[in-house]
This record gives sequence, structure tokens and C-alpha cells, in this order.
Amino acid sequence: MKALRFDGSDLALKDVPYRPSGTEAKVRVLRSGICNTDLEIVRGYAGFRGTLGHEFVGVVEESPEDPSFVGKRVVGEINVGCNKCPLCRKGDPRHCPDRTVLGIVGRDGCHAEFVSLPVRNLVEVPDAITDEAAVFTEPLAAAYGITERAPIEPGMKVAVVGDGKLGILCAWSLARRAHHLYLVGKHQSKLNTARTNEVEGILLEEAGKMARSFDVVIEASGSGSGLSTALDLLKPLGRLVLKSTIHGEVKWEPWRVVVDELTVIGSRCGRFAPALELLRTGAVDPRPLISEELRLEDGVEAFKSAARPGVMKVLLTTESGAR
Amino acid sequence: MKALRFDGSDLALKDVPYRPSGTEAKVRVLRSGICNTDLEIVRGYAGFRGTLGHEFVGVVEESPEDPSFVGKRVVGEINVGCNKCPLCRKGDPRHCPDRTVLGIVGRDGCHAEFVSLPVRNLVEVPDAITDEAAVFTEPLAAAYGITERAPIEPGMKVAVVGDGKLGILCAWSLARRAHHLYLVGKHQSKLNTARTNEVEGILLEEAGKMARSFDVVIEASGSGSGLSTALDLLKPLGRLVLKSTIHGEVKWEPWRVVVDELTVIGSRCGRFAPALELLRTGAVDPRPLISEELRLEDGVEAFKSAARPGVMKVLLTTESGAR
Repeated sequence: MKALRFDGSDLALKDVPYRPSGTEAKVRVLRSGICNTDLEIVRGYAGFRGTLGHEFVGVVEESPEDPSFVGKRVVGEINVGCNKCPLCRKGDPRHCPDRTVLGIVGRDGCHAEFVSLPVRNLVEVPDAITDEAAVFTEPLAAAYGITERAPIEPGMKVAVVGDGKLGILCAWSLARRAHHLYLVGKHQSKLNTARTNEVEGILLEEAGKMARSFDVVIEASGSGSGLSTALDLLKPLGRLVLKSTIHGEVKWEPWRVVVDELTVIGSRCGRFAPALELLRTGAVDPRPLISEELRLEDGVEAFKSAARPGVMKVLLTTESGAR
Repeated sequence: MKALRFDGSDLALKDVPYRPSGTEAKVRVLRSGICNTDLEIVRGYAGFRGTLGHEFVGVVEESPEDPSFVGKRVVGEINVGCNKCPLCRKGDPRHCPDRTVLGIVGRDGCHAEFVSLPVRNLVEVPDAITDEAAVFTEPLAAAYGITERAPIEPGMKVAVVGDGKLGILCAWSLARRAHHLYLVGKHQSKLNTARTNEVEGILLEEAGKMARSFDVVIEASGSGSGLSTALDLLKPLGRLVLKSTIHGEVKWEPWRVVVDELTVIGSRCGRFAPALELLRTGAVDPRPLISEELRLEDGVEAFKSAARPGVMKVLLTTESGAR
């Protein structure tokens, strides 16, 4: 099968055999999405080698563990736990110490014609959701997963810092839960894309006038300056959610967290069921975030495109997905 | 009266008139304690000018608001709110935007013969508590105030990073609430001082073997390296309490907070009543932390002493306190 693989220095389309992991399901990929984490892996973060990709929608072709899944259109949660430790036994492998992570840690990903996952990681996609929307389930789940970690309630004033695709998904998914939601960014065009009845876009240079007024601020810019902006916006006893993985060392002023008794909350992956519900009901339609759709065969070019300034989501389409 | 004053560049004992603030109580200071915050103010932090000091025990001499307080031995909560805003009306002025803070923000402190505070800030000291112990009420309240911000429960493995007086007060005050409490520090002598049946001292170089095993870690070292050690010790989904005000910019790796979904919690001041109860019952006896007691007149020398390596708490005694 064709697969977009990274060998530690180069990204290339390869022809490789499909290798199922034990009795896992074999899923024919229809579409996959390129995430910033993919780009960071190609830049050398995380030391991953193998097939990239962790956002997909596909159709189950084989499912020895549960044949009833064959033929279903599915998305897949990306953390595959040991299924034995206390965390996994509680049904949440996201912090299993022995977990693999699709296309990120110890497991081939989904920028390929087929992907292997345990059937317990698969979630059926309702008919009402198109492939183009369904492929956003993983990042939308990550965005909405903030609600598992921090209260977002109608009486609260909430800001998201960062007008990239992650920031916009955070804004869209949380807007209906908050009283006011402001998206703070540097790009008027992206703020325009993000604007809805519930989401108000604010240019960074105008955000200062709202300093120390927010109950919750979500850092989704992936930059140290975004972290600083987020701290500026919070009121005392406020909550700062760190959503993007800001890599490397960043300077900050921890005394601000002490003096204002702030709470800084890390948030990584979310569950898929609530994200699918947001897509099914139309509460979130992520498709305006699609900048380009390219064929898997043009994956290397697609990665270059995804890294360009101003480009939002780039999707890869397999032959099956294009049919 | 004599008062230890900082003019922005120099610390000096001055003879100044006692100036009551409105109808506040006039308290004759018996003893006051020198805190690291005092030392930092003298180094230029916070821009404070005036009489230093926020840890004291004293006797009420005048109390126009509530004459029944006259003659009582008291300690005083240090945040003086506006008494009008929603926070103050709820009885908690610690984040009142218009607050003054004793000897720190906009209000003369207690390294003096007399100090002025609203009667609502005063708490009577039970007879069972000596002056030498009572003067620790403020820092002990700050230490135990962690329990207002983070759950510390018997099933939890808890570490305190930093074997200075703040770290040791954190360890002593929290030990009985946690299952295991480890104090991580660089100084065997301080760890020896801190050791109790409930507190186990661990030298920093040996802490690595306990990496990723703690539910809660309290950073009380005041250094960037302490923050890094604290992150090393936490397990996924763990809580890091920032207790010391680490000044200036510090480098850290926020991605660790995201990937392990940690929660970083700032903690500043605590309430006095529970701290007095810890002192009254003998659950915490802070007196082994006293390195020196000097007279208020020797305050400048006492500040130099408090800044020396290895010195823990330095107390100032007034003529009234020495009687």
C-alpha cells in the first residue's frame, strides 16, 4: 500500500506492506488531515519514525475482534493503551504509560491507504456527517476536550488566544457553553473565517483593553508570546488552559500565577463521541477551515503546503476517498 | 515610634509618628518575623516604600471600631480590602483590586512599635500559643492555604520542593493530610530540622528515583530549577502548586504540562484561623525554625543576617515584646 513515511530525516511516499497489529481492525482510509503535530514530527520533534498521520475517516475492511464493524465508516481515537493498567481498565488510555499513539508514538499512522487500530478505538460516524467534516473529529475532540479539564459555563468570559485552526476549533466548540467568547489573533482574515454569532474576533493589538477581565483563557497559538498574552487577559483566580504543545523552552513569569492565584491547566486529547455530536448537530461545521485537498500520492507537496503561512487544514484523499 | 523603613534604596531604623489609618485598631507589636518577601522588597521588588514587615503578634491598644478588642493578643491578616467590592463582601479581600497589603503594597508594616489594621483583619491568639510560635501564623497560614487551592488527601503522594522555612512549613502543615510527604532539598541539616514521623527528607540528588510518581508537588524553593524538579516528580494528571514567588523570567517547558495534562496552581495567602489551630494543638511547632531573635533597634543587622545562607527565621523583638 502507499504510505507517507518519515525516516527521521526525510518525508517520502513509499510502497509498503500493510501490517496489521495482532487482531486489530483494518481500516481503508478515505481522508486524512495534516496536523501541526505532523509538521513538528517532520521537523524532528518526538523522534517518531514510520507512517505519519492521526486524523482520518475510513471504512472498516477487516475486524477479527468484532466482525459487526466490517463496512462501517469510522474515525479512531489515537491513544492505544495496554488495556491492562488501572487507567485503561477505567476506559481511558490517554495516560497509559505503555500507550502507543497513532502516527506519533510507536504506531504507524493514517496518511496511508490502510490503518490498523483496535476496534475499541473506533467510533462509527453518523450518516449526517460528510467525510470532509468527519476527518476533523480528532482535532475537534481535542478542542472540546478542554471541557473535561476546565469548567466553561454560561456566566464566564472566555478567550481563545491563537487564530490558527486549533484556536478556531476551540472557539467554535466552546462558544455555546460560554457567555462571551473572544478569539484573539494576529490575522484579520482568519478572524473573519472564525466569526459566528457566538465568536467575536479581536486583533491582538486591541486585546490589551480587555486585560485582567477573563475567567478562562485558552492558549492555542503555540507560542511563548501567546502564553504571555493569555496571562495578561486573565483576572485573579482565573484559569489558563494550555492547549497547544509549545515546544522547547519558553520564558515566563511564574510569580504572576502565584500573586493572582491562577490555575494553569494542560489539555491534550479529547473523547470522540461529543465531537461527533457537535458535527452531527451542525453546532460546528469545520469545513471552512479546509485550505486544500490533495491526493495521498502528493503528500510530500501537501506537507509543504500545510507549512505555509496562512494555510489552514490540508486534507489528503486516497483513491478510495476520491471515488 | 521606632520603625524599620525602606525608602527605595536604603533600609534604616527611623523615629516616625504613629499614623492610624482612619478608625483602625492600634496594635503594640511584640514580635515580628522577617520573610523572604521583605528581603526581596529591599532588593527592589514591588516598589514598596515605607515600614516593612507583615508577620507579627501584638496587643491591641486602641480599637475604636470594636473596643472589646482592646487588650487582646492578636495576629493580623495582611490583605486589607476595600470592604465594598463583591470579593470583600464575600469576606475574602485577598484578591480585592483595591487592596493594600501590610508592609508590601500601600500600607506601613509591622517592623515597628505599633501597627494599624482594621479590626476585621485581627484574630485573637489562644493562650496556649507562645509569642514565638504566634509570629509564624502568617507564613503557616500561607503554607496551609495550599489546601484551599489543591486537594491534599490521605491517598495522595505529596512532595514539597525546597527546604527553606516556607518549604518546611508547607511540609509540616500538610503532612498529616497526605499519605506520604517528602521534602526535597539541597541541605541535609535543614532536612534534619524538618524531619518528623510524617515528613521524610530527601536530598535533591536522590529525588530522581521518584520521578513521575507524585500526585501533588509543591514548589517552595523560589528557583527556576525547583520548578523543573517539581515537574520531574509529577505523574500524569498531577498537580503542581506554585507557592513561592519566583521573580523575574524563568525558562520552562510548557509542553510538559500539555502532554501529561498537569495542573499548575498558584497559591499565595491563607486564612489565619486554621493556622492558629495547627499551632494551638501542637500539630505544628514552628520554633525550631528560629535562627535568631534580635531587637527591633538592630533591624538592619537582622535583615543582613536573614539574607545569609543557611539562616532560617529571624525575629525582631520590641521593648514590649522583650518585657
